[in-house]
Amino acid sequence: VTETVWLDGRLTEEPALSPADRGFTLADGVFETIRCRAGVPLWLPDHLARLRHGASQLGIPLSLDDRLIARGIADLLAARGLAEAAVRLTLTRGPAAQRGLWPPGEPVRPTLLATAAPLRAPGPVRVTVARITRRNEHSPLSGMKSLNYGDNLIARREAAGRGFDDALLLNTSGALACASVANAFVRLDGRWRTPPLRDGVLPGLARARLLALLPAEEARVMPHDLARVEAMILANSLALTPVTALDDRDLGEVRLPEDELYGLPA
Amino acid sequence: VTETVWLDGRLTEEPALSPADRGFTLADGVFETIRCRAGVPLWLPDHLARLRHGASQLGIPLSLDDRLIARGIADLLAARGLAEAAVRLTLTRGPAAQRGLWPPGEPVRPTLLATAAPLRAPGPVRVTVARITRRNEHSPLSGMKSLNYGDNLIARREAAGRGFDDALLLNTSGALACASVANAFVRLDGRWRTPPLRDGVLPGLARARLLALLPAEEARVMPHDLARVEAMILANSLALTPVTALDDRDLGEVRLPEDELYGLPA
Repeated sequence: VTETVWLDGRLTEEPALSPADRGFTLADGVFETIRCRAGVPLWLPDHLARLRHGASQLGIPLSLDDRLIARGIADLLAARGLAEAAVRLTLTRGPAAQRGLWPPGEPVRPTLLATAAPLRAPGPVRVTVARITRRNEHSPLSGMKSLNYGDNLIARREAAGRGFDDALLLNTSGALACASVANAFVRLDGRWRTPPLRDGVLPGLARARLLALLPAEEARVMPHDLARVEAMILANSLALTPVTALDDRDLGEVRLPEDELYGLPA
Repeated sequence: VTETVWLDGRLTEEPALSPADRGFTLADGVFETIRCRAGVPLWLPDHLARLRHGASQLGIPLSLDDRLIARGIADLLAARGLAEAAVRLTLTRGPAAQRGLWPPGEPVRPTLLATAAPLRAPGPVRVTVARITRRNEHSPLSGMKSLNYGDNLIARREAAGRGFDDALLLNTSGALACASVANAFVRLDGRWRTPPLRDGVLPGLARARLLALLPAEEARVMPHDLARVEAMILANSLALTPVTALDDRDLGEVRLPEDELYGLPA
């Protein structure tokens, strides 16, 4: 199926990426996933600030200003006829002028792509702790929404293979970092906590807001803590997801502060 | 510039990847870089075996058999008029049928791409140890030639910013893992060694051969070892690269066993 996307500043129904795009060959880029309600992208300034911060850490220039990107997203939603949507913005260093890791060759012409999909509310999930991979808290990538999703993918696939809906990732020191596509909040002794950024955690936009809302504190979560958590919520920019079980242990029900977090439905 | 590539089983001068390709969106794939001499791909069975092994670890099917892939590479080299070349084979899970990390949606139609470039002999390099990132020896990705090259890229970019040609990466335990696109061999007390696979090392095809050729042993290399290495070689499937300096310290000259490793020039 051909779907309209917004690519390098214009809408197109026939998007084509170069096979030399360094996003494709080397995961050389960053992205954001943005919830849209009634056609309005939520937290857009924060998403764009994080995109720009990640891009600057990788040395990828982004000349388009925020207003043009916002206009592109609005045009995309209109063209797709979507109001409740998940918009993904992907920024890569663009097609390489020569092969090899670095330097990328000049001139750099970054690729900026926006795609949209209908928003689907996630159901409750049963999670397990990934065994075959760890999140690298020693890499700047763990604090960036980079294209390098291999570990998340491996963890999620392992969980699915063992009959679970999602995976929790530990970092290389053995502390909880996050779920495969979300930050994790756990309730222990009646108090909410979420792992600190230094444990290899993406600074999630929903995470920052939920910290204040629940309220929760930032504190390390070790496997012996996980063994006795009373409740768990997964949070990302698209949704809050209730966790009903961790491995074979049922967790408590939680009232999700959906409307407080994402705003009231239109 | 438009260059012929081999994509999904045929040569094309107008290659177009889908923006939904999971190689692009999630680094969901693996690749190989293959040296060709006089139009013949070196070590092709080993490259294809490693590609298939990585693909199976990620659950990416590859239905094309080795002979068809070999024919595709031959056709590509002929079309490009290249005899001494670097061929890159990239395999991804292909375009996603739905957004999200997992499941990828059915049916899976993997993308298999071969591109070719003239082979260039690397010059000698000066290297430094990356400070801002580490290689994750706890991830299966470190043993796979996956598309997740973000840490290598960050390390290489840091080294370039500090005036060096390449970066050595330590793992999260502080042991040497590799250079940004090659395995590392160091001479200590007159004996060659290279880090063991468990330290987060790609099982390089040149590495395996050089272990026998030099000969070298597999043994952990710590920063205090690096401080006194006498010589260093970087090795990958394309070339051996002599290292002339580590940080501000000059290293000894080395005779590179080029012909023994890659075969005599045509």
